Amino acid sequence: MADKTLIPPRTLQGFRDYPPEVMIPRERLIETAKRVYRSYGFSPIDTPALEYLEILTGKGGEETDKQLYRFQDHGERWVGLRFDLTVPLARFAAQHIHELGTPFKRYHIATVWRGERPQAGRFREFMQCDFDTIGTRSTASDIETALVIHDLLRAIGIRDFTIRLNNRMLLTGLLERQGLVERSSLVLRALDKLGKIGVEKVAEEMVAMAGATPEQAREVLKLAEISGSNDEVLRQVEPLVAGNATGETGVGKLRETLAALAAVGVAEPFVKLDVSIARGLDYYTGTIFETFLNELPSIGSICSGGRYDNLADLYTNQELPGIGASLGLDRLLAALEKLGLVEKVATPAPVFIPYFDETHLHDYLRLAAALRTAGIGVEVYPEAKKLGQQLKYADRRGFRIALIAGQNEFDAGVCQVKDLQRGEKQDVPLTGDYSELIEAARKILC
Amino acid sequence: MADKTLIPPRTLQGFRDYPPEVMIPRERLIETAKRVYRSYGFSPIDTPALEYLEILTGKGGEETDKQLYRFQDHGERWVGLRFDLTVPLARFAAQHIHELGTPFKRYHIATVWRGERPQAGRFREFMQCDFDTIGTRSTASDIETALVIHDLLRAIGIRDFTIRLNNRMLLTGLLERQGLVERSSLVLRALDKLGKIGVEKVAEEMVAMAGATPEQAREVLKLAEISGSNDEVLRQVEPLVAGNATGETGVGKLRETLAALAAVGVAEPFVKLDVSIARGLDYYTGTIFETFLNELPSIGSICSGGRYDNLADLYTNQELPGIGASLGLDRLLAALEKLGLVEKVATPAPVFIPYFDETHLHDYLRLAAALRTAGIGVEVYPEAKKLGQQLKYADRRGFRIALIAGQNEFDAGVCQVKDLQRGEKQDVPLTGDYSELIEAARKILC
Repeated sequence: MADKTLIPPRTLQGFRDYPPEVMIPRERLIETAKRVYRSYGFSPIDTPALEYLEILTGKGGEETDKQLYRFQDHGERWVGLRFDLTVPLARFAAQHIHELGTPFKRYHIATVWRGERPQAGRFREFMQCDFDTIGTRSTASDIETALVIHDLLRAIGIRDFTIRLNNRMLLTGLLERQGLVERSSLVLRALDKLGKIGVEKVAEEMVAMAGATPEQAREVLKLAEISGSNDEVLRQVEPLVAGNATGETGVGKLRETLAALAAVGVAEPFVKLDVSIARGLDYYTGTIFETFLNELPSIGSICSGGRYDNLADLYTNQELPGIGASLGLDRLLAALEKLGLVEKVATPAPVFIPYFDETHLHDYLRLAAALRTAGIGVEVYPEAKKLGQQLKYADRRGFRIALIAGQNEFDAGVCQVKDLQRGEKQDVPLTGDYSELIEAARKILC
Repeated sequence: MADKTLIPPRTLQGFRDYPPEVMIPRERLIETAKRVYRSYGFSPIDTPALEYLEILTGKGGEETDKQLYRFQDHGERWVGLRFDLTVPLARFAAQHIHELGTPFKRYHIATVWRGERPQAGRFREFMQCDFDTIGTRSTASDIETALVIHDLLRAIGIRDFTIRLNNRMLLTGLLERQGLVERSSLVLRALDKLGKIGVEKVAEEMVAMAGATPEQAREVLKLAEISGSNDEVLRQVEPLVAGNATGETGVGKLRETLAALAAVGVAEPFVKLDVSIARGLDYYTGTIFETFLNELPSIGSICSGGRYDNLADLYTNQELPGIGASLGLDRLLAALEKLGLVEKVATPAPVFIPYFDETHLHDYLRLAAALRTAGIGVEVYPEAKKLGQQLKYADRRGFRIALIAGQNEFDAGVCQVKDLQRGEKQDVPLTGDYSELIEAARKILC
């Protein structure tokens, strides 16, 4: 066998394996997101990874079109792998909204693929983690979206974050007043770079790319000078849109949203008006969000989204307004690791039972079963190897507790309970229902 | 807009959307599987959906090769979508086992794709739900695999099932004694059809396809006549392999496995020896499992697996023996539905709060937040529509409780708690911390 040709085991460039120590915190984060989404009545959906190519290329810009994994299937249909979860949601909503009814609140946590040039921290396969409310224009949904983001970050264990809030209507109002509304897409794309390239460069880009005059650019960039508490920001922004209905509506919606959030205890510093954020995408039309970790602002927004007027106009004539946001799972995981908020373990079970004495396998199995019934995960080592070897394995995997019993212990009616983190050990009586052992394990795990 | 050409919203043939009422029980089942796998120390892993084509076609039979979704990527590499989770596990293990160490216990719950001809209940995209222990030949892992299957079905809420157990060594021993070992693959493939086509047809196939003599076929099919309790089966099978080392080892391992299972209370009727099951796949070499729902045996095995000697010989010279099994998620869900074990809801939150009085949005939000903090999911309707409309929505979604408060209720300091399933309602005092409302909701939900 040794001289046959082996196929080299490797993954494609831009793709990666998730071993246990990466996957365990990942699954934990996904479960937290699901729990929070569900607690607000968002329902899970899923859609196929493969769609008709025409569905996927319908709205895509040149950039996404280039990145699409596309091919002909067995029936010679042109198909593609989804590159986000918004296009599938639009197709899904257009197809099913009559049975689903509105408002329709869904979350979708799934893999997407983009044939991008691989670069540090960017992959060709990654997971998106979206939630949306479709079929209503009510500001109550904008408020709720901010609450979900807030609860989600708290549930993950993050205490120091800022949800930055703006409303596209405010920006549109300002551009209307400046006679720039025809060019709003390019102007906002420039504005969106404010955090990265600064006021001067943004002004230059507005002039060069969007055809604004220097005066117009200066007026728009007054937004960047606005600062202070949320109330102060509102006061400063009002004159910039005074007399413009769109802009005034935008300011009113921001005020309404902030008041409701404050009523449930979600206020500054967790929610901060930032009238200069624009979000690149054209399809946002109302409230927009970005979320930053204050200890790591440089990694960018970890949860962004906003309100749109019409989700699915490529696939249906029915207007589907909505609002949603997307948790940046990989970015957040990278950040949690940097902040030391990810526990490094390679086992999902906290308790390890070495298979110490070959004649006692049934006892080990019974003990493990009792702990599992009590809700405590247990791994029994499968081979009666030397204890030292087994404990090395337990260390490498990151078990918290070892329950050690050989012939001496069974004779004495005890089991050694070893706290592998603290290095402490104690003998605990082995009773018929293992209740004292379960108690001892619980104490260490709490 | 109305006269522009729409892209028809549709999914590819053999693919499907999962709306909430399908996805909610599906997620619940997946979470149960994860919980049980983890409780035995199996760790999650994931691997890319796309792999180098040569990795995927390495071992595949003609059938899987034909079904592979394959294409050239942006770098003109030939790639394919994974068609199962065993080939990726083999590649993963070959690549990483030196860092992972053995025994390595992993679960992998992920989507796979096969371009099969679509037929009732078969899809081109489906989910697999596997767990395996790699790097040990110890029978303790065989025992554990059966325990996991048992715990998993119990955790799902199934009480009436049978794990059918056999050992390939017993079959190999019998074939060795009959001089059929060179043809074992074809003989076992025929034997595998016993449940479907009966003894006579299997005998015919053994003669026609595997080149056995009618006498040899008759000897092998003595297996099909063996019945009774596990002890009785062991007694009847012993003479069939007497004097053959492989067969005797197989019988010994079955005895050892059954004794250990019985020691933790997993005995007949949950575990049943069935010496005539063979499992089609060539690579099984030891213990094999199939699991049937006794009320729906016709749907076939819902959890199958077995022991193999060498997982990854295409990718590494390191021998990797192991054992694993796979839960048939879609088959099981179909069965649960038939058995009435799937609750039909389209919301993951049990409590509904109608947005009844526009001036009280902050109160509704506060009440919802208090319930969520107490661990109870709540959806607040986003628009101040007529109460009747909102309650119809609640009915359609399947909420269990509605908490109704308009101006009258707020004036009286109460909230109406309506059990939407039983149609009962009561007024509960609206206190500052909402404790009585939380209590009332809890009572209904318990």
